[in-house]
Amino acid sequence: MAQTSASPTPLLKDELDIVIPTIRNLDFLEMWRPFFQPYHLIIVQDGDPSKTIHVPEGFDYELYNRNDINRILGPKASCISFKDSACRCFGYMVSKKKYIFTIDDDCFVAKDPSGKDINALEQHIKNLLSPSTPFFFNTLYDPYRDGADFVRGYPFSLREGVPTAVSHGLWLNIPDYDAPTQLVKPLERNSRFVDAVMTIPKGTLFPMCGMNLGFNRELIGPAMYFGLMGDGQPIGRYDDMWAGWCMKVICDHLGLGVKTGLPYIWHSKASNPFVNLKKEYKGIYWQEELIPFFQAATLSKDCTTVQKCYLELSKQVKAKLGNVDDYFIKLADAMVTWIEAWDELNPPKSSAELPNGKGK
Amino acid sequence: MAQTSASPTPLLKDELDIVIPTIRNLDFLEMWRPFFQPYHLIIVQDGDPSKTIHVPEGFDYELYNRNDINRILGPKASCISFKDSACRCFGYMVSKKKYIFTIDDDCFVAKDPSGKDINALEQHIKNLLSPSTPFFFNTLYDPYRDGADFVRGYPFSLREGVPTAVSHGLWLNIPDYDAPTQLVKPLERNSRFVDAVMTIPKGTLFPMCGMNLGFNRELIGPAMYFGLMGDGQPIGRYDDMWAGWCMKVICDHLGLGVKTGLPYIWHSKASNPFVNLKKEYKGIYWQEELIPFFQAATLSKDCTTVQKCYLELSKQVKAKLGNVDDYFIKLADAMVTWIEAWDELNPPKSSAELPNGKGK
Repeated sequence: MAQTSASPTPLLKDELDIVIPTIRNLDFLEMWRPFFQPYHLIIVQDGDPSKTIHVPEGFDYELYNRNDINRILGPKASCISFKDSACRCFGYMVSKKKYIFTIDDDCFVAKDPSGKDINALEQHIKNLLSPSTPFFFNTLYDPYRDGADFVRGYPFSLREGVPTAVSHGLWLNIPDYDAPTQLVKPLERNSRFVDAVMTIPKGTLFPMCGMNLGFNRELIGPAMYFGLMGDGQPIGRYDDMWAGWCMKVICDHLGLGVKTGLPYIWHSKASNPFVNLKKEYKGIYWQEELIPFFQAATLSKDCTTVQKCYLELSKQVKAKLGNVDDYFIKLADAMVTWIEAWDELNPPKSSAELPNGKGK
Repeated sequence: MAQTSASPTPLLKDELDIVIPTIRNLDFLEMWRPFFQPYHLIIVQDGDPSKTIHVPEGFDYELYNRNDINRILGPKASCISFKDSACRCFGYMVSKKKYIFTIDDDCFVAKDPSGKDINALEQHIKNLLSPSTPFFFNTLYDPYRDGADFVRGYPFSLREGVPTAVSHGLWLNIPDYDAPTQLVKPLERNSRFVDAVMTIPKGTLFPMCGMNLGFNRELIGPAMYFGLMGDGQPIGRYDDMWAGWCMKVICDHLGLGVKTGLPYIWHSKASNPFVNLKKEYKGIYWQEELIPFFQAATLSKDCTTVQKCYLELSKQVKAKLGNVDDYFIKLADAMVTWIEAWDELNPPKSSAELPNGKGK
């Protein structure tokens, strides 16, 4: 079962930021207080910057609105979406921590089958701190979990695993469906608690949802760009999908792991399916071309850093998806701007700053 | 939750055989009576053919011992292992049904978390009768299950899925560990009930265990050869692994699906780890070369039937694994013999026999 109580000493307390995109008061944090209060929050305020967002007392946070984003990034702010939760990726960029956990403000604490509150953050951290196994499937799921291991026939040379870059958590109650499925199944709720964490195999793509997501910023941060969505763009609700497809291709290239499964959060509010349909409909046919593109994408051996991988991918987006729609030419340019902005805010460490005195 | 009671009209009653390899009296069937009694059993008696195997009353069965196998296959009987549960694949060959369920005689009925008996066979049939989704990962697992669907970002063109060839079930209590892991963790028991069925993605290999396994014999039967193991062979306990790797490469080539997860059985008896180590030790280092071989294996476009795929794979085994050990040359020859024997016992249907009157 998932861990269900806050640790006396919170894991990675000074090494993790919680990123929350929002347009409203953050009352939802009250429910998360036992788990989140020890951590630093980065709140990215979407929409009207003159509106005041109320954050419950006792939380340690920094808050950025659109004016702040424009001031900090200058012309490069064009790569950060407006009026869309894609703006959350600005928080990844300004963080100085090794790990990020991001959550939507309509997500609440879920309960495990025994009725205990699930500490989603703690489970993400466990997922991120234990290796992944992308090269061969383990039928008993996460082999590093207590009470489990690698089964008969699993090559011993693969049992060390690889570093985990991303931990993708799931949702009880309102499932993350597209607008057509929402319309067809308005009453469907997810009540199945699947007690498993697994590695998405190398070469396999999946739909990454940004609602309940942890990642290692040092390993994969620059690939977690949530694209151009919302205001002034022809599409919405594909921000996390885009990031997930780009990220997975790069993780596969660099030998990094991506996990999905636990932890669950309680997703409280179904978004309006008619509004969603308007945001999604181009994506619904574009994705039929995007998936084969990402499935076939390969990166050259020169791509030894996430930034190099991402810039190489942006070129392929422009060359191969530009004929799908002009939007992808604009998006490919924004991908480059994103990396430039990332590197500006996150200059490469000088050798003196390297850990373990390796630079000395 | 898994279905937990026998249906009033058993699914596929006249289209499925239950194959059981054994060396002892089949008292374990008493516990399975409510679920298995409506079906036909094929019992493959291993070891001394003069020994009488007792089958509880009321079961409909045919039983084959070594003398029967030799009589039916003649010189081709050399491809069927002796003194190893790999002999079970003879049962697949003599069956005339569309579906096979195979189970070990130390496997009992498991209980779901609510305490109800799990009808493993019924769950396998459900897995086999619903499609698989090998081309893209669905984060809510089986999208065809009640209460689940494809999540946002899943391409609509892939939502019909592909036919399911294999359903791989799991085990509570004694996990299916190799000898080294058994030796290191003698007390480990699997008590985690993971309420999920999922498709193993295309291009991903897994360790297939033969203890609790269903498959569509018409779709994939000739690939389910359990190899040369046991008496006179340098290796044991790799029969199901070998079948699983060959089968998966062929399913990926032919666009067929492979599922793993539910149903669980209760695995009662840990085999002796010292004996297992003796059987396995060559496999433990050979598999380090076998896995890369199968991961890289591709089949030509001419391979349009399972038989053609399997013969092509046997050539590659001989050419690329023959230098690992002479055993693989012998195994490659046995793979050819297996297909010859399969085709002899299962002559291609004449056009008049094709379903739906297509041959008329």
